[in-house]
Amino acid sequence: MNLEALQRMIREIKDFPKPGILYKDVTPLLARSDIRHFIAKEAAEKIKGTKVDAIAGIEARGFLFGVTLADYLCVPFIPIRKAGKLPYKTIQESYELEYGSAQLEIHTDAVVPGQHILIYDDLLATGGTLTAAGKLIKRLNGDVAGFCCLIWLSSLDGAIRLKNEFGHFPNYLIRY
Amino acid sequence: MNLEALQRMIREIKDFPKPGILYKDVTPLLARSDIRHFIAKEAAEKIKGTKVDAIAGIEARGFLFGVTLADYLCVPFIPIRKAGKLPYKTIQESYELEYGSAQLEIHTDAVVPGQHILIYDDLLATGGTLTAAGKLIKRLNGDVAGFCCLIWLSSLDGAIRLKNEFGHFPNYLIRY
Repeated sequence: MNLEALQRMIREIKDFPKPGILYKDVTPLLARSDIRHFIAKEAAEKIKGTKVDAIAGIEARGFLFGVTLADYLCVPFIPIRKAGKLPYKTIQESYELEYGSAQLEIHTDAVVPGQHILIYDDLLATGGTLTAAGKLIKRLNGDVAGFCCLIWLSSLDGAIRLKNEFGHFPNYLIRY
Repeated sequence: MNLEALQRMIREIKDFPKPGILYKDVTPLLARSDIRHFIAKEAAEKIKGTKVDAIAGIEARGFLFGVTLADYLCVPFIPIRKAGKLPYKTIQESYELEYGSAQLEIHTDAVVPGQHILIYDDLLATGGTLTAAGKLIKRLNGDVAGFCCLIWLSSLDGAIRLKNEFGHFPNYLIRY
């Protein structure tokens, strides 16, 4: 297995969730445990040299490969969820949607101050959700150690936005 | 680590998501990789003797420990999602909410006919979502090999409902 073969396994779906979008479907990757392991190994390789005390994954697709990566690295997993899902005390950050905005939340005790936290999501497009996630980590006095995504849509400005805001160019496995 | 100690790590939150509910918060378990591994190992022990070709996990909390279990068993992971999230062709099943109903979906090519599929969610209460998930697997000609959950609320009738509908009493790690 290599990254080119991995990219060929991603299924492209036309006009989902709306006309004009070519959606990247990663469910074929989930269907093979060796591929899930390969993705975690490659992600760990990309972030080699970065101190990572925990992985924060964004609901819901960031949970999937994010947990496997946290297991691979033997570090805590911190769930970042949509508004109203986390039961304990939370803080919120907004991120933009095409029309209007939505909120991400994190538990106030999810981060040990000073902890180096890698933020994981499966796809980086405009960077809106990853930026909101990074702000949540910083507000809890965590260190944003970096970002990692399976797929980077490089025609959009998400990567440079994260670099400008947090000083880290995101790690990625597959670039479109 | 043992199951009694695991149960003590679950945080109970009063009146979430609404008055009268004592919510079981499993985020403290996610925060330790050794605990995530222990949960997978114990779940694997519970289902010993059951042929499992794949784990189907229900969005979003069923993704968390479900993926770790699939990794532990080295089997495919099949995501079952809320309506409108899966991009390829899907089938739907309704499940009841307190007021009205909602739908779960699965990709039509997610199951190989005859595959033995263990359905995973973190909490079994009334069994509504697990029943809907089981129906989806059967409609795709999969074999429902069983159910597994981290927490069983045994005062509700979910377990007997699953036994009656699918012939399998659910596996669980922690009973309330």
